[in-house]
Amino acid sequence: MRLSRYFLPTLKETPAEAQIVSHRLMLRAGMIRQASAGIYSWLPLGYKVLRNIERIVREEQDRAGAQELLMPTIQSAELWRESGRYEDYGKEMLRIRDRHDREMLYGPTNEELITEIFRAGARSYRDVPRILYHIQWKFRDEVRPRFGVMRGREFLMKDAYSFDLDYESAIRAYRIMFVSYLRTFARMGLKAVPMEAETGPIGGNLSHEFVVLADTGETELFCHRDLIDFDVMDRDIDYEGDLKPIVDEWTGQYARTDDMHDQATFEKEVPEDKRVHRRGIEVGHIFYFGTKYSEPLNAHVSTPDGESVPVHMGSYGIGVSRLVGGIIEASHDDNGIVWPDAVAPFQVGLVNLKPSDAACSQACDELYRKLRDAGIEVLYDDTHESPGAKFAQMDLIGLPWQLVVGPRGLKAGTVELKRRATGERHELSGDSALSRLAA
Amino acid sequence: MRLSRYFLPTLKETPAEAQIVSHRLMLRAGMIRQASAGIYSWLPLGYKVLRNIERIVREEQDRAGAQELLMPTIQSAELWRESGRYEDYGKEMLRIRDRHDREMLYGPTNEELITEIFRAGARSYRDVPRILYHIQWKFRDEVRPRFGVMRGREFLMKDAYSFDLDYESAIRAYRIMFVSYLRTFARMGLKAVPMEAETGPIGGNLSHEFVVLADTGETELFCHRDLIDFDVMDRDIDYEGDLKPIVDEWTGQYARTDDMHDQATFEKEVPEDKRVHRRGIEVGHIFYFGTKYSEPLNAHVSTPDGESVPVHMGSYGIGVSRLVGGIIEASHDDNGIVWPDAVAPFQVGLVNLKPSDAACSQACDELYRKLRDAGIEVLYDDTHESPGAKFAQMDLIGLPWQLVVGPRGLKAGTVELKRRATGERHELSGDSALSRLAA
Repeated sequence: MRLSRYFLPTLKETPAEAQIVSHRLMLRAGMIRQASAGIYSWLPLGYKVLRNIERIVREEQDRAGAQELLMPTIQSAELWRESGRYEDYGKEMLRIRDRHDREMLYGPTNEELITEIFRAGARSYRDVPRILYHIQWKFRDEVRPRFGVMRGREFLMKDAYSFDLDYESAIRAYRIMFVSYLRTFARMGLKAVPMEAETGPIGGNLSHEFVVLADTGETELFCHRDLIDFDVMDRDIDYEGDLKPIVDEWTGQYARTDDMHDQATFEKEVPEDKRVHRRGIEVGHIFYFGTKYSEPLNAHVSTPDGESVPVHMGSYGIGVSRLVGGIIEASHDDNGIVWPDAVAPFQVGLVNLKPSDAACSQACDELYRKLRDAGIEVLYDDTHESPGAKFAQMDLIGLPWQLVVGPRGLKAGTVELKRRATGERHELSGDSALSRLAA
Repeated sequence: MRLSRYFLPTLKETPAEAQIVSHRLMLRAGMIRQASAGIYSWLPLGYKVLRNIERIVREEQDRAGAQELLMPTIQSAELWRESGRYEDYGKEMLRIRDRHDREMLYGPTNEELITEIFRAGARSYRDVPRILYHIQWKFRDEVRPRFGVMRGREFLMKDAYSFDLDYESAIRAYRIMFVSYLRTFARMGLKAVPMEAETGPIGGNLSHEFVVLADTGETELFCHRDLIDFDVMDRDIDYEGDLKPIVDEWTGQYARTDDMHDQATFEKEVPEDKRVHRRGIEVGHIFYFGTKYSEPLNAHVSTPDGESVPVHMGSYGIGVSRLVGGIIEASHDDNGIVWPDAVAPFQVGLVNLKPSDAACSQACDELYRKLRDAGIEVLYDDTHESPGAKFAQMDLIGLPWQLVVGPRGLKAGTVELKRRATGERHELSGDSALSRLAA
């Protein structure tokens, strides 16, 4: 993409309303724009990141055997009355009346609707186990939306739901999602630690939050330092195999959010030099809740013996839009964002220092073509801004690599390749730069 | 995907509420399920088709130089007051009050919001031309939603918006979208004919509808038969080049929807044997409307002379979810759906006629593995249903190829390959079948 044609409205000044660094940087980098309180438009640069994150989430759900569908944003209130949750949700639920005065709502979550879908489509033990998921916009009418996409009102979430014949099978599904979450976050360059957590309005009796460490997070956490030092979970997984050892490894040490924290247990179980008390950002939350929805909503299947039993369910959420902010909180410096390669909107920023110089522009055009031919996504700064402004903007938007081409270097046969994360720079030939980037 | 694990709740009976064939077939094939009136959940099979269509639309928008972003579903009423359309939309607009009693709405279209985004991010002639698009769910509170996804209340639409300095440049954008629409629909195996159309509540003075011929369509059309006989538009296009000849070719003959139809002109311009009076389904609609929104909303840029002028705009819609129904209306037979290859949920249905036979299952497992290794999406019927039920279900869901494996054929060293569209069957070796499918 040529920057001269790209819709990238970066800001020079820091917007006063943004309290945390990810919100400030997303506004400054032209990634989002507020449409109304807690509701954002995703501009081209931001939307590319959101879609990269969504793709990783989807790939890992599919790999774990979950099946994608899509439920609508607008739901009927009726189903929520069946489950008894219509009143529970209070003012956070956006309630709507349509033209026929029917009560509707903008789904804040989908346990009711997916249970209804499953009960209509499943009859027997042959129809389980299943894990169904969707990636859809949700709405929670927060009283004070803040922190940009971290606590917005309209937000993108992946929610999966598991359906099993009995407890043992349901725990298998729980472990599959647990492990797939470790992989999902690791692929984004994040260290997310699973914490025992309260189940809240979802209900149930087994739940883990996946929390990324960040001082600006809203979640307070207490855990054993070893969990933080664990290797991220990027190895291949056989989801048909026994996942208990992996889950046990990650749940064998004290790790709780403040809701569940017990100081005496913490001090008893964790040696003083291993106690970690930090803040973090919740990016995923998984629940096993048994028959809490399948009973009132009558989602039964028949067993091999012909008995009709309510299915055991769990639900598994990932905050897809929140992750964009979470990754920035975990990966930035004074000059701007530092995107992990896997989610970066472009891999390379190609900077033409002097577009008025024919040789310089020709060299840039050729590098641009070759990079694209190699399947590398490039943002090509072919504008007439000053070199200083170009460098500052490239650092701000945080592409992993900057390839800088100027008349002086070209005379010596070199271009400059800079790694955004480390600031390391190398002078090398255009071809060497290309082969390093294509590696 | 193994059918024994797939969530595919097909129906044996035809649902009474479905009046048109696409609605009936989508329900029967387990593609969708109604959540409430005019609002559907997309089950795994249906969602795969929807995503395939969405991908084609996205690829063709990107190819034409449009840039993707995403605007939220919930908008503030304020902007719509600025443009003067808040009252115009009547009861079709889903109006909402949030917890602070602020007036919101579920966007039925996005001219206002995109204009606001553009005015905030653009300053001068250097910031045009731009075409921005998004693919997002919309809501129109139809008084009588019907025909399944063809006239639902919550529906997925691609809407693009162009921003130009003057009329000439805006017409270039209009032509770019016009031609990209021809390509987009052709890639889906559809013949969509552009018709002069009324502009309706979008406003403006230049507009074409793209209409797929189908007797069940809600649009009445009159056109010259040559347009229907034109080759579909699947050749490569240089979007930087002159597109006027292509547009002229497609607009040179009488082609109007009933709103714009004039019988006298029709009879004067079209010889009697070339007059076509048919019904069709509107799948795309493009508009040039000049400064209708940029003036009231103050979306100005400065010219090279320093003058401040309102930008010229157009908008360009494709009914993404409607297309799923539209394609079925155009491509089905008595036994079910006949998917064009480009949008099919799986390319191949692999039918194991006797899973209890070890040799048969081994052959199927191997074909399944090899097809997947070749990057081909396969639905593998490994269930214990009767052969008749398996054939009927495969025909119903309409995958382009059926690969049928039974013990009798295996003894002779053959499998059967059936093309869904034509019913043609070939007995051939497993390897020959693989190489034909991988071609």
